[in-house]
Amino acid sequence: METELVNWILRDIPASPASVIGNGDDCAVICQSGSSQLIATDMLLDGTHFLSESISPELIGRKAVAVNFSDIAAMGGRPTSVFISLAVPRATDQKWLERVLKGAHDMAKEFGCGIDGGDTNSWTGKFAINVCVTGKPHWRGPVRRSGALKGDAIMITGQSLGGSLSSGHHATFTPRLAECTWLLDRVPIHSMIDVSDGLGSDATHLASASQKKFLLDSSKITTLRPNDPSYRSIFCDGEDFELLFTCSLSVAEYLLKSFPWPCGLRQIGVVEDGQGVYTRHKDGKSPVQLEFSGYQH
Amino acid sequence: METELVNWILRDIPASPASVIGNGDDCAVICQSGSSQLIATDMLLDGTHFLSESISPELIGRKAVAVNFSDIAAMGGRPTSVFISLAVPRATDQKWLERVLKGAHDMAKEFGCGIDGGDTNSWTGKFAINVCVTGKPHWRGPVRRSGALKGDAIMITGQSLGGSLSSGHHATFTPRLAECTWLLDRVPIHSMIDVSDGLGSDATHLASASQKKFLLDSSKITTLRPNDPSYRSIFCDGEDFELLFTCSLSVAEYLLKSFPWPCGLRQIGVVEDGQGVYTRHKDGKSPVQLEFSGYQH
Repeated sequence: METELVNWILRDIPASPASVIGNGDDCAVICQSGSSQLIATDMLLDGTHFLSESISPELIGRKAVAVNFSDIAAMGGRPTSVFISLAVPRATDQKWLERVLKGAHDMAKEFGCGIDGGDTNSWTGKFAINVCVTGKPHWRGPVRRSGALKGDAIMITGQSLGGSLSSGHHATFTPRLAECTWLLDRVPIHSMIDVSDGLGSDATHLASASQKKFLLDSSKITTLRPNDPSYRSIFCDGEDFELLFTCSLSVAEYLLKSFPWPCGLRQIGVVEDGQGVYTRHKDGKSPVQLEFSGYQH
Repeated sequence: METELVNWILRDIPASPASVIGNGDDCAVICQSGSSQLIATDMLLDGTHFLSESISPELIGRKAVAVNFSDIAAMGGRPTSVFISLAVPRATDQKWLERVLKGAHDMAKEFGCGIDGGDTNSWTGKFAINVCVTGKPHWRGPVRRSGALKGDAIMITGQSLGGSLSSGHHATFTPRLAECTWLLDRVPIHSMIDVSDGLGSDATHLASASQKKFLLDSSKITTLRPNDPSYRSIFCDGEDFELLFTCSLSVAEYLLKSFPWPCGLRQIGVVEDGQGVYTRHKDGKSPVQLEFSGYQH
């Protein structure tokens, strides 16, 4: 929700001449000396994105890098460098800080990066970590939110959604970088986003950016019925960090047969003319508009 | 001082393969698709780098961008894009936030940039702002800290040092981007840094990175005598954001005659074989090693 606030404020602030894709997608794309580059930045705060007393410092560092890698994956790119800024409470043990950076470095290393710079300052406030990641787009170019076409299949990686906070998935997930590269090496993807705000909200982002209607088949998303108390959490919990994307139906058929990654891949809907996100349950007669689709621009 | 801590921790953490110049200079330099890019990142914290009750929000935004631009200037580059992350206390007025971003944008615009992305999150903590800036190196290449040569003149921009916090200079200074481009368009600069930690500390960074001795003529730096109570503040206050650089004596002669910028330029010493930073006062017999040169690696 808060990300929307800065988007809203930045809407009226011009981007740099080097900017190709500005604020409002998963990453910015800037072009310099003829080569384009992805840039993602995310700040994680103690008490908001993690609880420093109840999570290992390694997982804080890991998550801070992984959420940015997930943004790079959502544009179809691969990460090339990582920068870390820390706001550190005065009494912090240096060993604890080293463990945060170790967790960050382990995640960076898993995808061929190191840590390339940063800034650390102590203060009387709580712990905060900002990570900035640069990336290289796939040769097909950055995959935007706005490219969904009428008739596209709506696809999502992973087996389940929701409950990320209680299961610890929010801090231990692996960003879908290998999967996105595998996809783009083989097929064109029309639009893509990583599910960080929840399927409802992020499907709305894709539908809105593409000016299309997203019709979701809720029985493909969950075995829960719409009147189940937990049904809502599937669409709203957020921090799933799966890839939600659209592609042609023939590409979808090919992918459903050949996708080799353990996380799996499902088709959960189709793109139609119109606007908004609708769900149809197999028992239901007509689709209902998603009520809990998050903040709308 | 705190920057040194993360440098110390990061010393053992490898950089990304794309990294050309890693942690330990004013900016990182990464190379992608054959083109090199500067990246600087700095986090400013309420109570440490500014007092949110006693400074206008525009100046907070301005300073957060300007300190990063000063790092880009210290490498001889020009900025190309700006990313802003905010940690916002829950009760913050949105108008106040807009004024922070306006100050940031005004500074960015002054040097041909806009705001290209960011992240905002509210929390129960204090206000923090992280800025990440990309830049393009001069065609001569990035100017490093480690290039000072024996016999070089030690040069500094600006009329005075010290008292930056009390005068408000720390929040209103103009990064020396135009000056550094003017210099590099005309002459080779051997080593350069921006004076953020104080002349003593930053001269030590140059001397140490270049493995040379820096001999400063204190009468060229200040009219104060070494036993004056304010003498120390000239070398230690920090946040002057002037450019400290070295070049050949013949280049220095040319620059002292032709430097057209209102901030002015002085020669304050020479580079010799050896190590450490020494000051010689015109009344003194032999040079004394600078005692307050800040944290040493």
